[in-house]
Amino acid sequence: MPDRILRAISMQTIDHRGPAFADVGKRALEGMKSIFKTESHVIIYPASGTGAWEAALSNALSPGDKVLMFETGHFATLWSKLAGKLGLNAELIPGDWRGGADPDAIEARLKDDTAHEIKAVCVVHNETSTGSVSPVAAVRKAIDAANHPALFMVDTISGLASLDYRHDEWGVDVTVSGSQKGLMLPPGLSFNAVSEKALAAAKKSTMPRSYWSWDEMVGPNASGYFPYTPGTNLLYGLNEAIDMLHEEGLDNVFARHKRHGAATRAAVRAWGLEVLCAQQGQESGVLTAVLMPEGHSADAFRATTLENYDLSLGNGLSKVADKVFRIGHLGDFNDLMLMATLSGVEMGLRKAGVPHEAGGAQVAMDILSENQEQPTAAAAQ
Amino acid sequence: MPDRILRAISMQTIDHRGPAFADVGKRALEGMKSIFKTESHVIIYPASGTGAWEAALSNALSPGDKVLMFETGHFATLWSKLAGKLGLNAELIPGDWRGGADPDAIEARLKDDTAHEIKAVCVVHNETSTGSVSPVAAVRKAIDAANHPALFMVDTISGLASLDYRHDEWGVDVTVSGSQKGLMLPPGLSFNAVSEKALAAAKKSTMPRSYWSWDEMVGPNASGYFPYTPGTNLLYGLNEAIDMLHEEGLDNVFARHKRHGAATRAAVRAWGLEVLCAQQGQESGVLTAVLMPEGHSADAFRATTLENYDLSLGNGLSKVADKVFRIGHLGDFNDLMLMATLSGVEMGLRKAGVPHEAGGAQVAMDILSENQEQPTAAAAQ
Amino acid sequence: MPDRILRAISMQTIDHRGPAFADVGKRALEGMKSIFKTESHVIIYPASGTGAWEAALSNALSPGDKVLMFETGHFATLWSKLAGKLGLNAELIPGDWRGGADPDAIEARLKDDTAHEIKAVCVVHNETSTGSVSPVAAVRKAIDAANHPALFMVDTISGLASLDYRHDEWGVDVTVSGSQKGLMLPPGLSFNAVSEKALAAAKKSTMPRSYWSWDEMVGPNASGYFPYTPGTNLLYGLNEAIDMLHEEGLDNVFARHKRHGAATRAAVRAWGLEVLCAQQGQESGVLTAVLMPEGHSADAFRATTLENYDLSLGNGLSKVADKVFRIGHLGDFNDLMLMATLSGVEMGLRKAGVPHEAGGAQVAMDILSENQEQPTAAAAQ
Amino acid sequence: MPDRILRAISMQTIDHRGPAFADVGKRALEGMKSIFKTESHVIIYPASGTGAWEAALSNALSPGDKVLMFETGHFATLWSKLAGKLGLNAELIPGDWRGGADPDAIEARLKDDTAHEIKAVCVVHNETSTGSVSPVAAVRKAIDAANHPALFMVDTISGLASLDYRHDEWGVDVTVSGSQKGLMLPPGLSFNAVSEKALAAAKKSTMPRSYWSWDEMVGPNASGYFPYTPGTNLLYGLNEAIDMLHEEGLDNVFARHKRHGAATRAAVRAWGLEVLCAQQGQESGVLTAVLMPEGHSADAFRATTLENYDLSLGNGLSKVADKVFRIGHLGDFNDLMLMATLSGVEMGLRKAGVPHEAGGAQVAMDILSENQEQPTAAAAQ
Repeated sequence: MPDRILRAISMQTIDHRGPAFADVGKRALEGMKSIFKTESHVIIYPASGTGAWEAALSNALSPGDKVLMFETGHFATLWSKLAGKLGLNAELIPGDWRGGADPDAIEARLKDDTAHEIKAVCVVHNETSTGSVSPVAAVRKAIDAANHPALFMVDTISGLASLDYRHDEWGVDVTVSGSQKGLMLPPGLSFNAVSEKALAAAKKSTMPRSYWSWDEMVGPNASGYFPYTPGTNLLYGLNEAIDMLHEEGLDNVFARHKRHGAATRAAVRAWGLEVLCAQQGQESGVLTAVLMPEGHSADAFRATTLENYDLSLGNGLSKVADKVFRIGHLGDFNDLMLMATLSGVEMGLRKAGVPHEAGGAQVAMDILSENQEQPTAAAAQ
Repeated sequence: MPDRILRAISMQTIDHRGPAFADVGKRALEGMKSIFKTESHVIIYPASGTGAWEAALSNALSPGDKVLMFETGHFATLWSKLAGKLGLNAELIPGDWRGGADPDAIEARLKDDTAHEIKAVCVVHNETSTGSVSPVAAVRKAIDAANHPALFMVDTISGLASLDYRHDEWGVDVTVSGSQKGLMLPPGLSFNAVSEKALAAAKKSTMPRSYWSWDEMVGPNASGYFPYTPGTNLLYGLNEAIDMLHEEGLDNVFARHKRHGAATRAAVRAWGLEVLCAQQGQESGVLTAVLMPEGHSADAFRATTLENYDLSLGNGLSKVADKVFRIGHLGDFNDLMLMATLSGVEMGLRKAGVPHEAGGAQVAMDILSENQEQPTAAAAQ
Repeated sequence: MPDRILRAISMQTIDHRGPAFADVGKRALEGMKSIFKTESHVIIYPASGTGAWEAALSNALSPGDKVLMFETGHFATLWSKLAGKLGLNAELIPGDWRGGADPDAIEARLKDDTAHEIKAVCVVHNETSTGSVSPVAAVRKAIDAANHPALFMVDTISGLASLDYRHDEWGVDVTVSGSQKGLMLPPGLSFNAVSEKALAAAKKSTMPRSYWSWDEMVGPNASGYFPYTPGTNLLYGLNEAIDMLHEEGLDNVFARHKRHGAATRAAVRAWGLEVLCAQQGQESGVLTAVLMPEGHSADAFRATTLENYDLSLGNGLSKVADKVFRIGHLGDFNDLMLMATLSGVEMGLRKAGVPHEAGGAQVAMDILSENQEQPTAAAAQ
Repeated sequence: MPDRILRAISMQTIDHRGPAFADVGKRALEGMKSIFKTESHVIIYPASGTGAWEAALSNALSPGDKVLMFETGHFATLWSKLAGKLGLNAELIPGDWRGGADPDAIEARLKDDTAHEIKAVCVVHNETSTGSVSPVAAVRKAIDAANHPALFMVDTISGLASLDYRHDEWGVDVTVSGSQKGLMLPPGLSFNAVSEKALAAAKKSTMPRSYWSWDEMVGPNASGYFPYTPGTNLLYGLNEAIDMLHEEGLDNVFARHKRHGAATRAAVRAWGLEVLCAQQGQESGVLTAVLMPEGHSADAFRATTLENYDLSLGNGLSKVADKVFRIGHLGDFNDLMLMATLSGVEMGLRKAGVPHEAGGAQVAMDILSENQEQPTAAAAQ
């Protein structure tokens, strides 16, 4: 977490009903529109990402509604379970956890739904458990091709502000995100970007709710205030983060993550290991999940790198528990931090006696050197 | 907000699924039991207080349930409105905003409810909008006297860790609180202390919920973890706050607030002004609401103290808007801070041309000097 | 110490030879000229104030040189002792510690010195041990009236940035100051403002020196650098302090201190106590030293206020040890902080059983209210 | 700089004459004895390292005294120049900047000095400009072998708390150090460790001094105080740094630096470049100076790494300006930070078109992996 942000969140809390607060609130609300790339509404919750998942579903839908989801991995599965707890009828298209959501499968299912029972299509943009990215614009096209009126909801909790994202252009109705990934903040804030269509749907929802209600937020937000106590200190940090992102330029941020993903995958392959994401073009710039060789425990390996190199790698979740480790390369991250990380993985593989070829870090250096010249071109994705 | 706490919340965020987190989580969960004075469960939400209000109602009750509330002021009214939004049938016993909840009125209403339609009695402990304190133990006795099985829910968002509070001894089923008052933190954490009876009631609740679900929390909490991303940095601050409270001693904390309330009221009366709370013994040690003389705007006066003395006073809310100003004396507050505050009020009254007698601050000094000798005795309440 | 400054000094240390440092150094060096009100040179030492005393003497003088000093109090005496340790011949005009330096006595002594053996006249501007202010401009006139070529050196370690000070206009050759008083920083930086005449004198000095040498500083300073490692993190804080002073406006800063001094003295007199400074017009706006009633220990009283009200008062030094206590009202200080302080003194007097009249704090409030209207006029001094 | 230390130095400044300060002062003074490994005296100056150089010379010597120094590099040369400014007669044994001080040359020169005109032998332990380490114990033996009474002074400004150092065991009379290297603090504190022999010599010194006087310090230091204002906030940080060093264990700290030096040199050689230090066994664990290939500018290369990889490398000073760059590996530094640094150098060499072999970082990884097993054995040196 950048020092600038830690300093910002440790400023004295001001009165969230006092005159000075309006500026804090307005900067945050307007700033987040520029990050989501939307002209519509952004709702900021003093809650972590799971709350924003619940908010998206409970505002726009009613008990018993059917929602179509795609099993990209652990987090897509969790979201579908949460839908069930809210009394929704969640249908999860099965996936193999090795790529993003499949637009063709979604289109086929929607075409079958001639009665339009499906009220929302929900996909995870960047699946944190696998390092795969769903093709959001293509899913939009699939919905349109099926000529289906369902709302389109996207979770980009771990993708926003690291990967290209365009709420309005891609026709998303509700985008869900959180503070603790690309926004480089501690957890504690989460977001819904909400289209006019979703807002209209919310008027008809019968789901009991108050804390998550969009319509209670929209009024006070117009003048920079909130209907109940906001997460003031995290809002200070959010405003700092938005400034930092625009200072670097969002396209440069995206290009940086893309380069780091490419260099990481090259290292993984040079070590003779396999990247979990098997869909070319859907590999994440945020993190890379790596399959351990058969017979080796990913968690034992992770313990080795933590103990010997103070390097904390992500663990495999549920279906891939102990089978993968995850290399994060998101947020306030530069080439040398990546080299430190990849060197730590390589030294850890050696230390833990995991079969591998040496030289992955060296290969990553080659990739980084080659790709450094045209950050702007790279950003065009 | 104390410097110790601001420093704590600006430490680097750690992985909430990593081994080091367990200690952070356990300290917070166990520590909060000592603050609520309960052996039962404490739930910590990454959310502000309104979320904990919703959590209390949505776990223990089902749509259509009747709840009995008492109109102590603005916040009791807001809580009853929130109950309505959740589909509950909230009955609000009217109050004059000049005292705490009335146990006799509650007892009478419960005795009338022979069919036991009322599922919960909800009162606000410290009503922030008026500076009145409800007699929580007496309300418990009223429920018992009516031999009524309703759950007992108490909001002590602004009272906890400033005023004496005893979840178990007073037989409360759900206590609601938040981080940003007596716990001296920024907003962003809120709490439910939950009795076994309430937990059992939750098993039968049909209210759709996930983020607020007690039963999803209890399991992971046992080992110091949370089912979804917690507010890690605020938990650092919470642990620091709990340490600070126990270093001073809770009884000393309570006595300190009581003395400051008494000194403040003496100053108010010496100025010839009237304290909003008219029930002797129910005046708050957290804040004192003061009635403006007829024909004078409280908000204009508040603007004067802010502009001239950098002193921010609380405003009157809804029914008492512009009619009262509120003097806060909570949290990390000592005798000289109180004297600074009261001097600022007195200088502001003069500056704003509000009719008053000089000498209130001087009278407060007398009270503080007299009451200083026996902090322990004073704490016995 | 203001939070803004504590944050500034905790930024990461940068390389003091790298390109980014030049801006830090230039801002500090130029900024301090605006504070000293000089177009000449300012030297910044990574050292506390005693170092800047030594620097002033060791650059401009040679072993055996005679210097004329005036005994305004403890610090003037210490400076003369330091001169002796450097091999200078220090002559200290005796004083009663109840006022500033006496221009008439200085003029008389200089007129006697027809051989011009006296090479420097040294006075303390704000004598921290007594709360008296020397009339610097009048001393300059006295030197001129005696037609004496001695250098004029002034210590304003505790006066700068709180009391009006004009290095160039008042014809001072070397002004000595430090970081930890009006500049609101921790100790660790100290300053010499140096006239061209003093710089020329330094060329002829035979005193061995290196760390303190002005001439080694002047060259690198021109581009924002230092000849040896500077106090980088305190320079960050210094630049923040300079910004804060100019944001408020130096004249407003001076007026604020003047008002606070006046209110404090009114309180002292209302208590029936005596202010140590007996020269009207020479009382300090930085601090007020108060004489204890005969038979009462100032240090016992100070212990009472510290223990009961967390109020730390300054002690009496050497000649006035245990006979006076000192009330500081400098730096980042506002009306309500002063009222807190004076309330603490009044409550302490009562608690310690020191004979006094009640009501001093009340009188201070009257003074503050009366004097608040015309800050600009008050600043004209 | 570690976060723990930045937090420590941003605590509120306390009164350096108040009762709470004694503990701060005592911890610092006693703690520094454990770092210097001395039972004798440690003096702490609120000044940067150049001040401690001046202090060592000005306390123990008198104007006109001869001192013998050895030209290990830029800093040894600067120290001899400073001696000259203080009126000492500094004789500098010429060196080639590619190794530590030569005990044989020192012994020979001392044997010639039958009249014992040389009053002190001064060597730099870790020469920051070259990355060479002088064999301090061997120089002590050389002085003894010459049976010469000169004082022995060592500058370990950049070596202390990174390289093994033993003031008492190695018979050093005055050790000079500073805060901003191995102690991981901002600049602003510096040190003299002083033997009884040196303290006795100071009694006879005729050098004018006050700020640097050991004998004024020793008295107040005994109870944790200082004769003039100390650098309070940096002392907070110093106490934190001492704790951190002992938590890791000094021997582990030394072993860590040694491993990092070895890995760095292996990388340099793999690139086909030359390490400036040509004396085997005298290469520094603190930094490694690298010779640029003929015809290539070190400063242009440094600009490349800074611009492209945010990697700031040290520059060549005076004789080796633009001919070497320096890789620092000191302070709070771990294996992956070293790998980040070496990767940055390797990528920079490629980017800048400097002829080199790829694979240096890879070789460093091998060294780090091999040497990791026995930190304790490695620490035995």
